[in-house]
Amino acid sequence: MTPDLSRFTRAPERQATDREELHEFLDSQFVGVLASVAEGQPWVVPMLYARDGDLVLLHGSTGAGLLRHVAAGAPVAFCVTSVDGLVVAHSTFDSSVNYRSAVIRGVLEQARGSSERDLLDTFSDQLMPGRTGEVRPSSAKEVAATLALRLPITADNWLMKTRTGPPDPPENPAEQSVWCGVVPLALTAGSPQSAGWSVGPVPESVHAFIAGHPQPS
Amino acid sequence: MTPDLSRFTRAPERQATDREELHEFLDSQFVGVLASVAEGQPWVVPMLYARDGDLVLLHGSTGAGLLRHVAAGAPVAFCVTSVDGLVVAHSTFDSSVNYRSAVIRGVLEQARGSSERDLLDTFSDQLMPGRTGEVRPSSAKEVAATLALRLPITADNWLMKTRTGPPDPPENPAEQSVWCGVVPLALTAGSPQSAGWSVGPVPESVHAFIAGHPQPS
Repeated sequence: MTPDLSRFTRAPERQATDREELHEFLDSQFVGVLASVAEGQPWVVPMLYARDGDLVLLHGSTGAGLLRHVAAGAPVAFCVTSVDGLVVAHSTFDSSVNYRSAVIRGVLEQARGSSERDLLDTFSDQLMPGRTGEVRPSSAKEVAATLALRLPITADNWLMKTRTGPPDPPENPAEQSVWCGVVPLALTAGSPQSAGWSVGPVPESVHAFIAGHPQPS
Repeated sequence: MTPDLSRFTRAPERQATDREELHEFLDSQFVGVLASVAEGQPWVVPMLYARDGDLVLLHGSTGAGLLRHVAAGAPVAFCVTSVDGLVVAHSTFDSSVNYRSAVIRGVLEQARGSSERDLLDTFSDQLMPGRTGEVRPSSAKEVAATLALRLPITADNWLMKTRTGPPDPPENPAEQSVWCGVVPLALTAGSPQSAGWSVGPVPESVHAFIAGHPQPS
């Protein structure tokens, strides 16, 4: 398999330059990997995120020591990746994956005071539209236990790469005798499973989330 | 939404200690994020990977400058994450995701000589069992253009965390009046799409890959 994903830094034709494309991609996903440097060593943690305009919103527990380190101004790189298909070529070398991936660099800002609650509500609204209207507001204690963080997206602190489409045909026509193509992939939602103690019908927010994560076609 | 993923470093009850569990998880996925430090800054790139015994196998292009830096002995952390479900609780604070996530730390080793080809063939065999038997062998030129890397898994250089199951019930029974539960999620394969120039039936390796990526139930 050709190391397509690892070509992130070297295949300029796969590099997106359109800010809208970045935003649409970020809005289509909700998990990324936050990387930083702690005592000279690489540090990574998968995190939920949401986008709000020019901000990537993150949150964590105030009890998470390394996250507090990052919140205190360490440089970060936040990576979001979607695997959209397996690209099956006439050789393992030419095989690849279709993907979208973005890295945003910068320093996190911590939201405090009333902007902290706003950030957390926006986060929830983006991740699962409608849910904040179905449940009680967060308590002051819950907000206090949460670290609310922003990573600004600027004109030049991000990089996005994509690969789409079928594999390239072989240079040697004789090698066309093996099937080649793409197996589409997508993060797909199944049927909702009620908690044993839960009452009431499946709400609109859950139906909408499921509708937003269909089987790949 | 509670920042469950970001609790990676602080929820000991979610920490796996069984090496077999780590291996099974790694074998169920094929994309991770490689993090390192370059000139004091965090560096991340999504990469395909495969596991071979106690080794995580990676590969990249010899033209990828930062990957060469990492291959030359920089410390790395490799993060694999699977999002297995959306956990919908009675409050946004208690909502979460079901997930499995592993981080492996260390220094990459570069495979050279005959072990390089062996590594690349093993990589392809793990990622898509059976495909190497359907296509021609990689050429010497293709192997030479590829950086083949190993990250050893040792007794203590990895961390795995998981969350499974429904949300916790609310402490206040009055808050049970809103639906709660889990929306299962899985990376799902769709129907194979033949390349326009491709001939022949969809091969066994592709059928097996699709069967291994069913809809979540």
